[in-house]
Amino acid sequence: MHAVLQPRRKTRVVHVGQVPVGGDHPVRVQSMTTTDTRDVDTTVAQITALARAGCEIVRVAVPDAQAAAALASICRQSPLPVIADIHFDGRLAVAAAEAGVAGLRINPGNIGAQLERVVDAARAAAIPIRVGANSGSIPKDILHQCGGPTPEALVEAALRHVRLLEDHGFAAIKISLKSSSVPVTVAAYRRMSTLVDYPLHLGVTEAGTPLRGAVKSALGIGMLLAEGIGDTLRVSLTGDPLREMTVAWEILGALGLRRRGPEIVSCPTCGRTEIDLEGLVDAVEKHLAKIADVFTVAVMGCVVNGPGEAREADIGIAGGRGCGVIFKKGNVVRKVHGESMIPAFLEELDRFLAERRSV
Amino acid sequence: MHAVLQPRRKTRVVHVGQVPVGGDHPVRVQSMTTTDTRDVDTTVAQITALARAGCEIVRVAVPDAQAAAALASICRQSPLPVIADIHFDGRLAVAAAEAGVAGLRINPGNIGAQLERVVDAARAAAIPIRVGANSGSIPKDILHQCGGPTPEALVEAALRHVRLLEDHGFAAIKISLKSSSVPVTVAAYRRMSTLVDYPLHLGVTEAGTPLRGAVKSALGIGMLLAEGIGDTLRVSLTGDPLREMTVAWEILGALGLRRRGPEIVSCPTCGRTEIDLEGLVDAVEKHLAKIADVFTVAVMGCVVNGPGEAREADIGIAGGRGCGVIFKKGNVVRKVHGESMIPAFLEELDRFLAERRSV
Repeated sequence: MHAVLQPRRKTRVVHVGQVPVGGDHPVRVQSMTTTDTRDVDTTVAQITALARAGCEIVRVAVPDAQAAAALASICRQSPLPVIADIHFDGRLAVAAAEAGVAGLRINPGNIGAQLERVVDAARAAAIPIRVGANSGSIPKDILHQCGGPTPEALVEAALRHVRLLEDHGFAAIKISLKSSSVPVTVAAYRRMSTLVDYPLHLGVTEAGTPLRGAVKSALGIGMLLAEGIGDTLRVSLTGDPLREMTVAWEILGALGLRRRGPEIVSCPTCGRTEIDLEGLVDAVEKHLAKIADVFTVAVMGCVVNGPGEAREADIGIAGGRGCGVIFKKGNVVRKVHGESMIPAFLEELDRFLAERRSV
Repeated sequence: MHAVLQPRRKTRVVHVGQVPVGGDHPVRVQSMTTTDTRDVDTTVAQITALARAGCEIVRVAVPDAQAAAALASICRQSPLPVIADIHFDGRLAVAAAEAGVAGLRINPGNIGAQLERVVDAARAAAIPIRVGANSGSIPKDILHQCGGPTPEALVEAALRHVRLLEDHGFAAIKISLKSSSVPVTVAAYRRMSTLVDYPLHLGVTEAGTPLRGAVKSALGIGMLLAEGIGDTLRVSLTGDPLREMTVAWEILGALGLRRRGPEIVSCPTCGRTEIDLEGLVDAVEKHLAKIADVFTVAVMGCVVNGPGEAREADIGIAGGRGCGVIFKKGNVVRKVHGESMIPAFLEELDRFLAERRSV
């Protein structure tokens, strides 16, 4: 029976601006803006919000020359290294590199004769290139050879791009292999991790609405991370990218790889619950939304398992029949009643945070 | 490199009402009501809603004699087999068995001399008993021996209950091992699966708010299912248990173990998106909420990867610049514009469903 968390696979290190990716560096959390890149202010505002929520590297779409022209200003104001996401047009990649982006996401196989100029620009700017295969855009000959968008097809499609860069003596490469199928994703990254030592960017593509997407991303990304595979990740959810941060950090936290902010454990409620647990959990989550300190909070609505769980947490409350008991490090510190339960617990949370910060 | 999905571990079969659990039977989806069990109508209404959303076995809390007295009426009206969740009080378990429940959730070690009567009642009713350990309620001597709520401690705590039932010649047992830690959960079930062949009920306890809880459950439950471990599962989320069904079925579907309802793949949107993708996805998800048919729908906001993904789906739409292309099985069937995009796609979905049902 192997350990739940296997040792990290060794990869070489590439630098995305100030952020090293791969090797023994922490698994990085990425996202992608949903704003119009040509709108500098709105884009920088979203990047800033993502940074506050724990994003470490951000990608922006660069669909045209106007978007490329906005990059210099975005990069100057961005608190995070910015990666330019470009399809088909090598001139946009050269412009992005010259504008000061920290990385390029482009597939060398799609830009023909422009490749040499793109590689030269990336080398001059000392920035990496992420190449990748997406199950929706695998070349026809590979699809034919592999019998469909299989893990082998994804790996071969990505390696084709890798080889083009290697042929130009360029090695600052990251690789992604994206499918909307979890088993295909897992098998593809596993295979790639045995073939190359470039850092791997994990993601399940087109993962869908938040709740479903969180499940698919947790499964696909989480199974790989547990096997020691993956150097950076992006959770893809339709909608506000801030939610991607919640899911990304929860995956890393649940596996014990990295933590950011408090872990809130709460019981699912049942017919035994006699307090407004959902209201209490919501209040606690909102109250702690911007706290990056690492500790555990238990919010329990049950006198059966509640005290046991609350006792294990750094701070916790176990409620029942209109009253609650607040624990700190296993000791009862206060009993609270009725309406005062929520404000009293938030007050104890603040006191707990003040105390731990003053140590 | 082992397969992503390992063969299912062989367990013996127990019957929860009409629903067989274990052996080669599908991994079952369970939930627990959040209503007051004494309120029969509200409880039956929630069970009925859960059944429509894909729940196969439901648990209700039985905290007192009044709740036990409500069980006969609940069981008579419930579309699902009902399991009575009881702590400490063997008399409630006997009453529940006599009231017609399809299973008991009770820990034999907690009911002292009443155990024999409970076992007799379960045997007379031909119903199984689920025993389990929760990291919040492990006996002190085991905690001391194992140095805390470790996987070994969880397994030993559960086995103590199992042995008490075996001593009474009772073998219709299911086992759960619940922790709020994903690695502890995974290690505990792995260990248990090597020691006994009773069906295992999977769950990560106190998983928290929906998005975080979905991540933890997907990781803990999903990693085990991928290893072939687990015969029935419950996703614990604070709040409305209907959301637990979405997550449970998404875990099973994403791993390719079981499917219920359409799989909706949608892209995460980016600066390249030129349509209201989130609105379109929401409309599709709502439109298909009650459909149990199994097929794939792609809702893509991008002209780069969109058509490729949409082509792989049974039905899909790829939109950009205020217009969209609808695909069925890889063929373009219709082009739509502006405001009419959502109603036109929903219309095509209905047509698609009517056609596939008429085959």
